[in-house]
Amino acid sequence: MSSVYTRPLARLIEQLQRLPGIGPKTAQRLALHLIKRPEADIQALAQALLEAKQQVGLCSVCFHLSAEPVCEICASPQRDNHTICVVADSRDVIAIEKTREYHGKYHVLGGLISPLEGITPEHLHIQPLIQRASQPQVEEVILAINPSIEGETTTLYVGQLLRPFVKVTRIAFGLPVGGDLDYADEMTLARALAGRREIEWQ
Amino acid sequence: MSSVYTRPLARLIEQLQRLPGIGPKTAQRLALHLIKRPEADIQALAQALLEAKQQVGLCSVCFHLSAEPVCEICASPQRDNHTICVVADSRDVIAIEKTREYHGKYHVLGGLISPLEGITPEHLHIQPLIQRASQPQVEEVILAINPSIEGETTTLYVGQLLRPFVKVTRIAFGLPVGGDLDYADEMTLARALAGRREIEWQ
Repeated sequence: MSSVYTRPLARLIEQLQRLPGIGPKTAQRLALHLIKRPEADIQALAQALLEAKQQVGLCSVCFHLSAEPVCEICASPQRDNHTICVVADSRDVIAIEKTREYHGKYHVLGGLISPLEGITPEHLHIQPLIQRASQPQVEEVILAINPSIEGETTTLYVGQLLRPFVKVTRIAFGLPVGGDLDYADEMTLARALAGRREIEWQ
Repeated sequence: MSSVYTRPLARLIEQLQRLPGIGPKTAQRLALHLIKRPEADIQALAQALLEAKQQVGLCSVCFHLSAEPVCEICASPQRDNHTICVVADSRDVIAIEKTREYHGKYHVLGGLISPLEGITPEHLHIQPLIQRASQPQVEEVILAINPSIEGETTTLYVGQLLRPFVKVTRIAFGLPVGGDLDYADEMTLARALAGRREIEWQ
């Protein structure tokens, strides 16, 4: 016997195992759970999968994930259009939105410059960013990109291109809130020192 | 804005979150991964889900999960039909099959007796087991049921019913292979002592 699972179950487990972070044990647990659920639930999950894939594309302005040609954030008159926050991925937009602290617009690059992986600036949405950033109402571009090697390269590359048109800033790196000096790695500590600011006395 | 996700993405995340062991973070990660995959992959996953649900039922003999009316194990002439191994769930059949040490047949009860949860013997596949076990070719019924309170109750109940027809055994409980006496809990150690066997000198 090649498999201990009946064929359709084996196929489902194989499909689930392709998901990131899902190993054979978890795939089996999920599959056995799923086939015990009512058929309507399974239909709903299959439907949600197909609809998400078919309906979600990229916003034509900022390249964030969107079911409409222009995403909710770009289309919203409540959002401040003087500021553009540049991120690598839609995931980062979601993370920043969850803070509820930022009310400007976004621009999703779609990755980071990585010569090793063959990702050059032409693969990223950099040209449309330059066009957006050179519009008169834009006052500041915030680069919110991870402090990795690829992130630094991308930040410097994009920053240089934008400098002629607009004020360019980047997010702060340092000790995380709740973090402990004693446990912080040297890179983080070095960044925290370099990024020190004068205390604003009230 | 009610959600930071575009609607079809929010629906997919909501569906994924209903799976056991999948929290909001994992659901988001899976959803963002899935919508980046080629549409054919998503179709294959949706298809596998629906087919597994529609095609997999229970074997009419042993109640193991099966896409056929009679499962591969029950239908196989290679399997020893003198022995029936009784388990609570199809998961247990899969676990035992993976050892490749057992070559008899199975019987899946479909749960354990649990008065607290309202599960009485009538809810389990006990009557068909008695019919199977009283067939002349059956020589031994092995009860392979977890050593929990419900498991003990079920083992004793089923064991009493089968005793008149057939030899009834149960799997051994004791120190797991690689386990450490010093770290074993008292129940396990008590079981290991009670289950001691004379050494078989070669």
